[in-house]
Amino acid sequence: MASIGVVTPQSMHFDAPLPLRSGAALRDYTLVYETYGTLNAARSNAVLVCHALNASHHVAGHYAGQAQDAGWWDNLVGPGKPLDTDLLYVIGVNNPGSCFGSTGPMSPNPDAPGQPYGADFPVVTVEDWVDAQARLLDGLGITQLAAVIGGSLGGMQALAWTLRHPQRVRHCVAVATAPSLSAENIAFNEVARRAIVTDPDFHGGHYQRHGAVPKRGLRLARMIGHITYLSDDVMNTKFGRALRNGELSFSTQDVEFQIESYLRHQADKFAEYFDANTYLLITRALDYFDPAREAGGDLVRAFAPALNNRFLLVSFSTDWRFAPARSREIVKALVDNRIDVSYAEIDAPHGHDAFLLDDARYHGVLRAYFERVAAESR
Amino acid sequence: MASIGVVTPQSMHFDAPLPLRSGAALRDYTLVYETYGTLNAARSNAVLVCHALNASHHVAGHYAGQAQDAGWWDNLVGPGKPLDTDLLYVIGVNNPGSCFGSTGPMSPNPDAPGQPYGADFPVVTVEDWVDAQARLLDGLGITQLAAVIGGSLGGMQALAWTLRHPQRVRHCVAVATAPSLSAENIAFNEVARRAIVTDPDFHGGHYQRHGAVPKRGLRLARMIGHITYLSDDVMNTKFGRALRNGELSFSTQDVEFQIESYLRHQADKFAEYFDANTYLLITRALDYFDPAREAGGDLVRAFAPALNNRFLLVSFSTDWRFAPARSREIVKALVDNRIDVSYAEIDAPHGHDAFLLDDARYHGVLRAYFERVAAESR
Repeated sequence: MASIGVVTPQSMHFDAPLPLRSGAALRDYTLVYETYGTLNAARSNAVLVCHALNASHHVAGHYAGQAQDAGWWDNLVGPGKPLDTDLLYVIGVNNPGSCFGSTGPMSPNPDAPGQPYGADFPVVTVEDWVDAQARLLDGLGITQLAAVIGGSLGGMQALAWTLRHPQRVRHCVAVATAPSLSAENIAFNEVARRAIVTDPDFHGGHYQRHGAVPKRGLRLARMIGHITYLSDDVMNTKFGRALRNGELSFSTQDVEFQIESYLRHQADKFAEYFDANTYLLITRALDYFDPAREAGGDLVRAFAPALNNRFLLVSFSTDWRFAPARSREIVKALVDNRIDVSYAEIDAPHGHDAFLLDDARYHGVLRAYFERVAAESR
Repeated sequence: MASIGVVTPQSMHFDAPLPLRSGAALRDYTLVYETYGTLNAARSNAVLVCHALNASHHVAGHYAGQAQDAGWWDNLVGPGKPLDTDLLYVIGVNNPGSCFGSTGPMSPNPDAPGQPYGADFPVVTVEDWVDAQARLLDGLGITQLAAVIGGSLGGMQALAWTLRHPQRVRHCVAVATAPSLSAENIAFNEVARRAIVTDPDFHGGHYQRHGAVPKRGLRLARMIGHITYLSDDVMNTKFGRALRNGELSFSTQDVEFQIESYLRHQADKFAEYFDANTYLLITRALDYFDPAREAGGDLVRAFAPALNNRFLLVSFSTDWRFAPARSREIVKALVDNRIDVSYAEIDAPHGHDAFLLDDARYHGVLRAYFERVAAESR
């Protein structure tokens, strides 16, 4: 299947402040986004793609001269692909607080001329992102989405759309997600945050002013994250106990096993491009997402606003970060509300990362679902 | 049941170097140990207890004036307890490389007068520890152990006894252990080690010479370890998503959830007493343990030396660090060798930590097994 080809990011500026759940507000801000396919005359075929921790608005295609750097969901979005851009108008947007072009901690702080926000960037939540995305749709002249889709943290945003703006979306496709983080999920996030915050190069979050980057902390955060994205099985299959040099060297500090080499490599790459304050903000947004809490601890009641939305939930058998049981909690809450929901539990070995991979059964489910979405959106 | 009461650690010095698996040797060294109960006239009722990562020779009882600080397996070892010190002579020993009294990285380096070993302490393995323990038994005049027991890394030592000195032990009791670490296990160890090694206070492992302690790294290592000791279930039961102050404060750096507060507290405590070089050494010993590798990748063949030993394996249903499936691998290798083995899979909610806890079914199994050991040892 062909790629969407060369794409160009666009941006939209918003002068009105964005009120945030914390009570604070984000003053004027910019959102960077990309679109693929063509918005039909009825403006009824738009699909919004929400990104997870370290992804962005660059969902599909590639930038001119960078054919090797395809968007993060390029296997899913394009002409003839499950999210078929011959039929659907697909939008990717970078969330505020991120570090890929939209206003975030590395952007100038309007309250501190000449300085970046750094640690003073306000805490943003899944709900705040959804509100920002809704304003982008206003700007694009889209009243109602055919669908919103996301995996992991992106799935939380897709769910939140049906709770905050149910009349503005028809279908919600939430992949490898959860109605809230477990204590263990929060614990892993907390270790990653402590690694960053206690890095002497963090400088309380104002490292840019010090010309520093807390790379040690970012590396550790990425290693922890990476372990939780993979299943024990796939790690054993890919790396097992293979030694890097074929024999033991008896060292506590040097690389001995292939898995160590792999993790260090992933960590080094990540520390080169990701912003530490963004890591803190995004893991906190994950921690805070908890629609049941706002409905008195009742997930069924939380989904009451979504009565007229239709849902597809997808989970993966070996995902221990957002296990199938967590998706089933959502399915149950929807069923109890008599809301239209389909659920696919995909037997895949890749752990949480499976939502990004090109698995035939997984993509088959999405293709079938989006064929219906597209048919309804003509 | 009564505690063993006041106990006193003892020490034994060894002038002969200990040859190590790495090819290096540990020059003269001291082992600290404790004993509980009475060695019978036939010297046939001795049980050796092997410790795991952050434990020591202080298995049971308490030191004079410190009644609140019981040994780490005090619920198991004492008069009338499953490991009944009215019948058995129980020995706890601190392994070389540890930081609780036996020769380790904080001890004077004989090759660098006036300096501690620090990073120059040689890499020690499970097999090296077992050899050191065998020499302690020589010193105590014990030719054959009635049993060797350990949990987790201690279980690996118990297994290694039957492979290296099978004629010196009758029973092997290996709890919550594995025939080798999985790639995921190694990965978690590697993150912990990177946290320590990249702490600017680590100074390449010679932090004592710099008057420094890499506490940031130790804290992170402990947090990661702690998450893997607990089950997702028990974390949700104990902490769930409970907030520390009852309401959200919207902060990326302050404690928001109870689980964060708990982890930080555990981390702070650990960094006060544990040595960073010891952490590196002990996690490496875990990584390296792999009797199958030395038998051409064949775990069945690896256990051939243990033909006349008898085994009890115990695992816990919610232990995802050393899952029941890993114990079953050992059981299968023993059965294939026609070796006498009993196996108990305990349904317990506490994850890997269960091996330290007073669970009725678990302790019932150990009590029954050690009654037989004691009866045979009279």
